Amino acid sequence: MTELILTTFDWVPEPPRGLVRDLRIRWALEEAGLPYRVESVPFEDRGPTHFAHQPFGQVPWLTDGETSIFETGAILLHLGGQSEALLPSASGTRAAAVQWLFAALNSVEMATQPWVLYQFTGDTTQTPGRQLMDRFAAGRLDRMDAMLADREWLVGDFCVADLLMADILRAVDRFDGLSAHPACRAYVARATGRPAFAKAHDDQLAHFAAADAARAP
Amino acid sequence: MTELILTTFDWVPEPPRGLVRDLRIRWALEEAGLPYRVESVPFEDRGPTHFAHQPFGQVPWLTDGETSIFETGAILLHLGGQSEALLPSASGTRAAAVQWLFAALNSVEMATQPWVLYQFTGDTTQTPGRQLMDRFAAGRLDRMDAMLADREWLVGDFCVADLLMADILRAVDRFDGLSAHPACRAYVARATGRPAFAKAHDDQLAHFAAADAARAP
Repeated sequence: MTELILTTFDWVPEPPRGLVRDLRIRWALEEAGLPYRVESVPFEDRGPTHFAHQPFGQVPWLTDGETSIFETGAILLHLGGQSEALLPSASGTRAAAVQWLFAALNSVEMATQPWVLYQFTGDTTQTPGRQLMDRFAAGRLDRMDAMLADREWLVGDFCVADLLMADILRAVDRFDGLSAHPACRAYVARATGRPAFAKAHDDQLAHFAAADAARAP
Repeated sequence: MTELILTTFDWVPEPPRGLVRDLRIRWALEEAGLPYRVESVPFEDRGPTHFAHQPFGQVPWLTDGETSIFETGAILLHLGGQSEALLPSASGTRAAAVQWLFAALNSVEMATQPWVLYQFTGDTTQTPGRQLMDRFAAGRLDRMDAMLADREWLVGDFCVADLLMADILRAVDRFDGLSAHPACRAYVARATGRPAFAKAHDDQLAHFAAADAARAP
């Protein structure tokens, strides 16, 4: 097995800590028990090497031997191929898990992300565009709540689609956006109660805290 | 080979015609030359069968024998496994194409969709939340424009990632959102100039026009 290297920023400001997307990959690697190493790239001065690995200048990316992959969804799918704990190998369940992986990103996060960004800015002005987006988000959360009311995880056992969906809903919950969606909230609590999440979350916070210490005069 | 059945709405109002997501699947099927049949579900009265296939009450979904798949990204990945015209089989190129499939959905569409929704409502009020989202979209388009300036397609030959990326950028172009991004605009023109796109687009418009005719008194 080749060495897995996860690259994230060396430092980020306080507000996004605990939400930077390397967390999704750390979490998956911890769930799978796959050994990995974390490397850093500058947050403030993103150079050509950074853009060569991640064309949007974001993080994370994963290198696995000769392969360098960006996009958390693609990385999670790649890691899923290495561990039954992340993606079931039976073809029917696997197809269902993959479809939910896409649903988390494109049916749920695409709808909830604008709501989260509004909360980040503290913007409370209601306009027609915003109202449309708020309805879009609420509609998707309503459907997720109905689905999660009668199941523990999306497809049988916990899988990489749950990891992603729970992390997306966690961002909504952080701004108290799940008060009308108790099944979503309980699902986030179940997922983030897993030891692998706690390890990933603590490790991300420690990584950025170490950068603060190194910057201190 | 099992029969492929693409399910979409029986009818939709005028504004989204030409943008309903079954187009992405029609386009892929036409590119691959895979035979398929189109079935309809009611737009106005979405029942339990609909939600059983597509839990958000959206379209499309694809049935391939015993397998029913929702999420256009998951469907395109599934079809990619059936045709080299959609997804290259060499592992390195394939991994690159898959990562760009995710990038189209989660790095680009997630950023541009709010901008498109604002245009749909005609909302022009600038607020801090909206300004943040507009910067998010512009930043992603800037990066796409830099990348597309020196290549015809994302990864070697045209593949399913181009189909998706071009369809996402097309929605921005529809509201003249690519005037500052000429490489993106040229890429949309190249992609939509393909005969498979024209066939898919015409077929979608004809499908909804036939429903208008059936509704007429």
